[in-house]
Amino acid sequence: MNVEIKLTVWPINVARALPAGLAGRAGAHAEFTGVVRGEEEGRPIAALEYEAYSLMAEKVMQEIIADLGRRHPCLFVRVTHRVGIVPVGEAAIHILATASHRGPALAMVAEFIDRLKQDVPIWKRRALTAGELEKLK
Amino acid sequence: MNVEIKLTVWPINVARALPAGLAGRAGAHAEFTGVVRGEEEGRPIAALEYEAYSLMAEKVMQEIIADLGRRHPCLFVRVTHRVGIVPVGEAAIHILATASHRGPALAMVAEFIDRLKQDVPIWKRRALTAGELEKLK
Repeated sequence: MNVEIKLTVWPINVARALPAGLAGRAGAHAEFTGVVRGEEEGRPIAALEYEAYSLMAEKVMQEIIADLGRRHPCLFVRVTHRVGIVPVGEAAIHILATASHRGPALAMVAEFIDRLKQDVPIWKRRALTAGELEKLK
Repeated sequence: MNVEIKLTVWPINVARALPAGLAGRAGAHAEFTGVVRGEEEGRPIAALEYEAYSLMAEKVMQEIIADLGRRHPCLFVRVTHRVGIVPVGEAAIHILATASHRGPALAMVAEFIDRLKQDVPIWKRRALTAGELEKLK
């Protein structure tokens, strides 16, 4: 199972090319993109700021994917998590799982997202209003 | 819930733009792409040919999405199914579900694909070898 994990402060390109060598074997791509919404706890926001223990976060994500891969064998898994300030409407997290058949690909994505929220040291540091975001520019 | 359903003989563009008006409300996009694999029942193939009762297929897909939407409320669902000859490595089906939160988006996609296989009158008419595909060009 080929695994790519990346934390980035830049906008996530969810349409990045797949690795060569999957064509013919891949029958199913499942994807999830988590996007910042315009409100947090009922009040309007303009952005969220995410913070991470980067090395630990990447290590834990590797372990979760290896663990899930034993039950849900995939050919390829790519996780990209944005950190720092993520404006409303932009992606904070993207996961793509490719497998021969749909079951493992869909299960990998759904279970990874649950485990991410529980176990990975990446957290929402603060919500920014439009005024607060403007001051940072 | 905004729903777009399309059958097409052309390659599926999985990166088509989302409708305006979702930004700020959309927190989760779940997607599934089903791709033609290089073997069918153990023998190598170059393409699959899909056939559909088009009007009935679109109607049944609308009904399935409306039904699932009652349990898994989404903001937007787009289904694109290719018909005719689909070469190995190309997408036969793509579904995107957008919701405020991840639960309904992921459930819509996973349950739709199960129902599609059971209930929608689209079927694999035949598998083509490389030689058979070449003759059609």
